Amino acid sequence: MALIVQKYGGTSVGSTDRIKNVAKRVAKARAEGHDVVVVVSAMSGETNRLVALAHEMQEFPDPRELDVILATGEQVTIGLLAMALKNIGVEARSYTGWQVAVKTDSAHTKARIDHIDDENIRADLKQGKVVIVAGFQGVTADGDISTLGRGGSDTSAVALAAALKADECQIYTDVDGVYTTDPRVVPEARRMSTISFEEMLELASLGSKVLQIRSVEFAGKYKVRLRVLSSLQDGGEGTLITFEEDENMEKAAVQGIAFDKNQARINVRGVPDKPGIAYQILGTVADANIEVDMIIQNVGDEGTTDFSFTVPRGDYKPTLELINGLKESLGATEIDGDDGVCKVSIVGLGMRSHAGVAAKMFRTLAEEGINIQMISTSEIKVSVLLDEKYMELATRVLHKAFELDKA
Amino acid sequence: MALIVQKYGGTSVGSTDRIKNVAKRVAKARAEGHDVVVVVSAMSGETNRLVALAHEMQEFPDPRELDVILATGEQVTIGLLAMALKNIGVEARSYTGWQVAVKTDSAHTKARIDHIDDENIRADLKQGKVVIVAGFQGVTADGDISTLGRGGSDTSAVALAAALKADECQIYTDVDGVYTTDPRVVPEARRMSTISFEEMLELASLGSKVLQIRSVEFAGKYKVRLRVLSSLQDGGEGTLITFEEDENMEKAAVQGIAFDKNQARINVRGVPDKPGIAYQILGTVADANIEVDMIIQNVGDEGTTDFSFTVPRGDYKPTLELINGLKESLGATEIDGDDGVCKVSIVGLGMRSHAGVAAKMFRTLAEEGINIQMISTSEIKVSVLLDEKYMELATRVLHKAFELDKA
Repeated sequence: MALIVQKYGGTSVGSTDRIKNVAKRVAKARAEGHDVVVVVSAMSGETNRLVALAHEMQEFPDPRELDVILATGEQVTIGLLAMALKNIGVEARSYTGWQVAVKTDSAHTKARIDHIDDENIRADLKQGKVVIVAGFQGVTADGDISTLGRGGSDTSAVALAAALKADECQIYTDVDGVYTTDPRVVPEARRMSTISFEEMLELASLGSKVLQIRSVEFAGKYKVRLRVLSSLQDGGEGTLITFEEDENMEKAAVQGIAFDKNQARINVRGVPDKPGIAYQILGTVADANIEVDMIIQNVGDEGTTDFSFTVPRGDYKPTLELINGLKESLGATEIDGDDGVCKVSIVGLGMRSHAGVAAKMFRTLAEEGINIQMISTSEIKVSVLLDEKYMELATRVLHKAFELDKA
Repeated sequence: MALIVQKYGGTSVGSTDRIKNVAKRVAKARAEGHDVVVVVSAMSGETNRLVALAHEMQEFPDPRELDVILATGEQVTIGLLAMALKNIGVEARSYTGWQVAVKTDSAHTKARIDHIDDENIRADLKQGKVVIVAGFQGVTADGDISTLGRGGSDTSAVALAAALKADECQIYTDVDGVYTTDPRVVPEARRMSTISFEEMLELASLGSKVLQIRSVEFAGKYKVRLRVLSSLQDGGEGTLITFEEDENMEKAAVQGIAFDKNQARINVRGVPDKPGIAYQILGTVADANIEVDMIIQNVGDEGTTDFSFTVPRGDYKPTLELINGLKESLGATEIDGDDGVCKVSIVGLGMRSHAGVAAKMFRTLAEEGINIQMISTSEIKVSVLLDEKYMELATRVLHKAFELDKA
């Protein structure tokens, strides 16, 4: 008998039939003797519907009032799931964020959890009830409704698991675990039975959509045992995110491959090579709240330098305009860019102890005639920027080269 | 400068455009220097949508969880209206029932208001903000979400007006006031500029749909000045519901005519005329939670009596079955009924001092050849039960006979 937090996303509760299926799954865990806390999202499509209504009232909806509206999505789901459980004879009780209470700061639409009061939940669990909590939402110190931002339900689940010292936090999604890469691109992609917290963090931040990065960070901070499972299939063990280094010792150098098309490259060419240039460029971009990802600086001809960096594709044009405004003060000869690029990354804890992983990546791509535009590395990942037309090909050949299709 | 509570129903906030219109109307009252508290319902259709979802989960939805779901309807409206006001430069702040807090008993789906904390609202009004409150909802002593039942937003508005000692509570609807009768039946029907609280109470309980009877009772108890206005037209003065007897002294005997097709008649014939018969019949009906309206008992032949009563039309068949089950123990010779009947009522404070009002009603109907099946009276109303085919005709001839078309 364990205490389990289960989280079901918008697709898993996207219809009344699906909510009934979730109820069956929860009932099964109860029947096995576990205490169960369920965190749910809004029914799929509902949050978008509410956002659209808000935008009909104000071009930039007031954040406090937007949270009042958005929080209703999860509130409907908790009530429906409680009814579905009662309908099959399982005692259950729903909680909104303020009823728990999940206390957050007052950064509306992107609030952070400060503290969770768990007395009510513990009392209900002791009485044998299933506790259902609205994900994505909380309450500020002033008693205002707050929301945690997109994907916030994952964070709610992990935070509740941490507060309750749950034995496991199970994230149910429409995939049955974390794969070596996206199976839609590489049919040989393999589900991993375990993955380390650090690798999951890299994969999440590199565009793998299985888990929100904030929830993975939260799990890391509070050492929450996290498992990704399918809400559509029965009986799978999913992927366990582990914190024990030992379990990963014997593993291959590379665990997974992530890719991301949301990339654009900006080039600032022929800048006089003197101190402060990088700061002048990147400081201006940062002041505009645009996130810079990869950065490289090459020595050019005659004491000049070429400076390149990447930004999210949606920020390509504003960034280009910003930098063009600096052209004279920078003394740059040319400013150009490319919004048809992508990033492909290999990730693995084993890189720490395996030499030559990056070299093997570059050679594999070279053999396919794929040109690498930029490179960035961390202790457990190597990312390359490529022409986007090579994204699927690069992922496939790297998947094969690092033998990720073999268990 | 006054403190005004305005209430807008589901039709008045039925679309984002209509919510923008409500914002303009509120802004106008602010511009005139008034403090404004706005109570809103769910957008029309939303409550029905949520009820339907709940019924997909459970045949008889759990009342606590149903309230969790239903309360989201008004929560969306308050956020949208706050945005609409901010968008035209009016400072506003929304409150759910628990944020106010509107404290209720724990009779989920039909809770009664115990107490309203008005500190938060007063503080916001002092700062010049428009306060927007979700109607229809509150919070129990245990911190559960409660709702007040259909039409509960009227009650929320009146209760807030009472708590805040507001100068006026304005109920905006899709009609521009209270009419002498339904203008769709009698084109000559006239809007009344004032009506007494007692008359409004009779009209509301007799099937006139303008105001919920509970809100009128509440207004009477706390002497809240109540006005019914159109949310679709500008500049009307609507109908004021008054508590001052003097204002009504000079008025005609009859103020308005109500009619109701939701009626069915049950006859129990040839019952031995002995004590306890009425109790045996009506006690059985009451135990089945069926509401009895009109009752008559006639002496029949040879020591027997005929007993008749009316019930809501939807309860006709179950009531008939119930009474048939009693036939033997009652010793009745025949049990029959009619679910094709209607009730037409004349209402007016002036009846207290004007003799012959009932006689005039009966004569008017007789002259048209309309047979009266049952009669019931109170101090300020006379109701008759008729074949439903006469409903419109009876209403029209009575409207004319009592000169209700004349100011």
